[in-house]
Amino acid sequence: MLFHVKMTVNLPQSMPAEQADELKRTEKARAQSLQKEGKWRHLWRIAGQYANFSVFDVSDIDELHSLISTLPLFPYMQIEINPLVRHPSSVWEDDR
Amino acid sequence: MLFHVKMTVNLPQSMPAEQADELKRTEKARAQSLQKEGKWRHLWRIAGQYANFSVFDVSDIDELHSLISTLPLFPYMQIEINPLVRHPSSVWEDDR
Amino acid sequence: MLFHVKMTVNLPQSMPAEQADELKRTEKARAQSLQKEGKWRHLWRIAGQYANFSVFDVSDIDELHSLISTLPLFPYMQIEINPLVRHPSSVWEDDR
Amino acid sequence: MLFHVKMTVNLPQSMPAEQADELKRTEKARAQSLQKEGKWRHLWRIAGQYANFSVFDVSDIDELHSLISTLPLFPYMQIEINPLVRHPSSVWEDDR
Amino acid sequence: MLFHVKMTVNLPQSMPAEQADELKRTEKARAQSLQKEGKWRHLWRIAGQYANFSVFDVSDIDELHSLISTLPLFPYMQIEINPLVRHPSSVWEDDR
Amino acid sequence: MLFHVKMTVNLPQSMPAEQADELKRTEKARAQSLQKEGKWRHLWRIAGQYANFSVFDVSDIDELHSLISTLPLFPYMQIEINPLVRHPSSVWEDDR
Amino acid sequence: MLFHVKMTVNLPQSMPAEQADELKRTEKARAQSLQKEGKWRHLWRIAGQYANFSVFDVSDIDELHSLISTLPLFPYMQIEINPLVRHPSSVWEDDR
Amino acid sequence: MLFHVKMTVNLPQSMPAEQADELKRTEKARAQSLQKEGKWRHLWRIAGQYANFSVFDVSDIDELHSLISTLPLFPYMQIEINPLVRHPSSVWEDDR
Amino acid sequence: MLFHVKMTVNLPQSMPAEQADELKRTEKARAQSLQKEGKWRHLWRIAGQYANFSVFDVSDIDELHSLISTLPLFPYMQIEINPLVRHPSSVWEDDR
Amino acid sequence: MLFHVKMTVNLPQSMPAEQADELKRTEKARAQSLQKEGKWRHLWRIAGQYANFSVFDVSDIDELHSLISTLPLFPYMQIEINPLVRHPSSVWEDDR
Repeated sequence: MLFHVKMTVNLPQSMPAEQADELKRTEKARAQSLQKEGKWRHLWRIAGQYANFSVFDVSDIDELHSLISTLPLFPYMQIEINPLVRHPSSVWEDDR
Repeated sequence: MLFHVKMTVNLPQSMPAEQADELKRTEKARAQSLQKEGKWRHLWRIAGQYANFSVFDVSDIDELHSLISTLPLFPYMQIEINPLVRHPSSVWEDDR
Repeated sequence: MLFHVKMTVNLPQSMPAEQADELKRTEKARAQSLQKEGKWRHLWRIAGQYANFSVFDVSDIDELHSLISTLPLFPYMQIEINPLVRHPSSVWEDDR
Repeated sequence: MLFHVKMTVNLPQSMPAEQADELKRTEKARAQSLQKEGKWRHLWRIAGQYANFSVFDVSDIDELHSLISTLPLFPYMQIEINPLVRHPSSVWEDDR
Repeated sequence: MLFHVKMTVNLPQSMPAEQADELKRTEKARAQSLQKEGKWRHLWRIAGQYANFSVFDVSDIDELHSLISTLPLFPYMQIEINPLVRHPSSVWEDDR
Repeated sequence: MLFHVKMTVNLPQSMPAEQADELKRTEKARAQSLQKEGKWRHLWRIAGQYANFSVFDVSDIDELHSLISTLPLFPYMQIEINPLVRHPSSVWEDDR
Repeated sequence: MLFHVKMTVNLPQSMPAEQADELKRTEKARAQSLQKEGKWRHLWRIAGQYANFSVFDVSDIDELHSLISTLPLFPYMQIEINPLVRHPSSVWEDDR
Repeated sequence: MLFHVKMTVNLPQSMPAEQADELKRTEKARAQSLQKEGKWRHLWRIAGQYANFSVFDVSDIDELHSLISTLPLFPYMQIEINPLVRHPSSVWEDDR
Repeated sequence: MLFHVKMTVNLPQSMPAEQADELKRTEKARAQSLQKEGKWRHLWRIAGQYANFSVFDVSDIDELHSLISTLPLFPYMQIEINPLVRHPSSVWEDDR
Repeated sequence: MLFHVKMTVNLPQSMPAEQADELKRTEKARAQSLQKEGKWRHLWRIAGQYANFSVFDVSDIDELHSLISTLPLFPYMQIEINPLVRHPSSVWEDDR
């Protein structure tokens, strides 16, 4: 089950550099782990923005919420979610 | 070179059904041809919307513009384009 | 799996009254059938608006999209969808 | 009398963790008490958001305002209220 | 029970003048009847706009919805509703 | 001469409680004094919001500006002003 | 008493040229008459827009509303009104 | 050459009162000097707002930018600029 | 004197193809003539949009307004204008 | 390959003057270096704004993102990017 997610990060400018670095390091580790598990199917940086477009492949909404709300950067992100279905013009049975 | 594209379709309600059907038929054929060529990498329907999220893989902006502006439904679509780059946390060298 | 849906209806003012009545009649029959099946869990009219808040209980996104996009009034509706999860402060195991 | 309420929480990032935890604990206790009394009929978390959709069942606007404005998190919430009526297509006499 | 209502009227420019005049005539009669009954407590024209601010005094939401949705101009109006309570700084027990 | 005013209050969360209380106390005294003088004709709390809808009855714009811009909470309020005229459907000569 | 007014004109594209010309001709005559009377103090075209910024000098809101709502182009204009007062830094007693 | 300018001031609430007073004092002196030179043709306070509508009469864009960007309050202002031309319905050759 | 202009074209879908073609042909001739005169310094198509970003180099606002408001497509365009000045970091004395 | 970029700068008012000066100094050096290399083709200040319109000429999106995201002021800028193509009415083969 696919969800399109846009994440925009807003770290407070008062956050100490080490804290920001640590957050980004753990965020990256978590993001890579989820990608390898196949849950975080696509992860693209939007050029010129501190933001990404992602596609999650999860078994249900609970899993989606659990994955996103436990990301280290979650308290600093604005999240937009859109559920996806197969497009009738898609040539792939299952465009993951 | 990847571009994220959101397309929202607004067919005028006064358009005769045959004209709409013909437009959709040629749009579908064109979309499928571009997918098979590898130019239109992803095509997802946004659930509950007459809209899609797409990822185009083109050699330059001219090709992107040419592909989109010649779609049969182009005169009836609102288009939002975001250029993409590899995300630093991506596990794939080239997330197409 | 629950989705919160807001539907706002905009019938074109040029639509003949019989056509509008027929659309509303078939929409109502479909809405009631889906409620009885348990798919359309809640359906409230927003006071003073030609709009509703609904909660759908479906097995996956495909079913949600299929139910909504085949509603007779779908071509005349603006749709906003939000996936729902159990709230940590809910007293119900499963707030349907 | 039903009101649809969307609550979006924005805790200041400078708030000490203990204060935030205490606020959330008292908010939860209050929310559960109101649910058990039947005043707070539905409470769903919006996936990926620190926000909820709720339905309140109150005897009048004063009661609604009193319940919401005394919530421990009220000073940190953005509130959107919509009064609800029975939908003409509802199959339930009283969709609570 | 008081509700603040903003009504903005958009008559289609293609509507024949007699039809518009008839609509306005019946709207006026209905508005005056509701004012005399005490249901439509205040009715002010917003200067330079084809719009009004109103305050309705009704026994519940159903009555509010019923009054508004049966106005002759309802199909041509955009409606914004806000429930009201006594302001803690009001000098009147009941500011109608 | 009537003006419709919406006031939305945003006290900074860093303001000490005593300062906020003192501000609210002097605001209340000022609001009540203006109501008794007949300048501040209506004052309603918007349910669930730290905001009010008001109607001012002043002799000219200067008086309106002077009253509003000297309110103790003025530095913390967002203000929206709309001049009002008698509605052609009003049953009252002078709907104050 | 001064009001700042922005008027944006949207003539329907289906309007016959003669009707548009007649409307503009009578609008111009009316605008010039009001300027000569001193009611319409300033009238500037916004460059590149079919819109103007104006300042009206009227005795009360009723006169403002009456002047604006009887303009020949009123049914085709979007109007934004802001009441003005003397600026504390103005060097003129009365900046008309 | 005329430009319409809207300036909205947002002084940070943490600014010490003396600093704010000093800023306003120098701003006022500068504004009055520019008015006397004929560069700042009109300056009106928008009622109920910490904002003004102004008309600048400058020899070119460079002068406009130079005047505005050196105002003492510039770092705290949101600025909207619209170039103006003579309105075809104006009765004045040169509406300054 | 440079102005940055964004033009977005919205031809009504009911316009006959010949009329649209004729409009575009005369628009193109006019645009090319103005470019050759040096008035229309830059003209870029925004990819995927029926819109352009342009830079005009004119002697004053009157000339800008005159050029834009006499374009054949002007009645069908939404226009956004921003006056430009030399950027303090520019390496060119005069970035045309 | 051309991209149109709007950059709006928001330095926090709490930033010490020396830090801001140093940031602006290094930003200027970087901007001038990129202009001399031909990557940053145009750089205009928007009059009255702490913002610029720019045109970048890069070999691909990666280069664009790399250039923008390493600017010293990047953490304090809001960025809007639009890919550009040759306009069909352009008189230049390559409007850089």
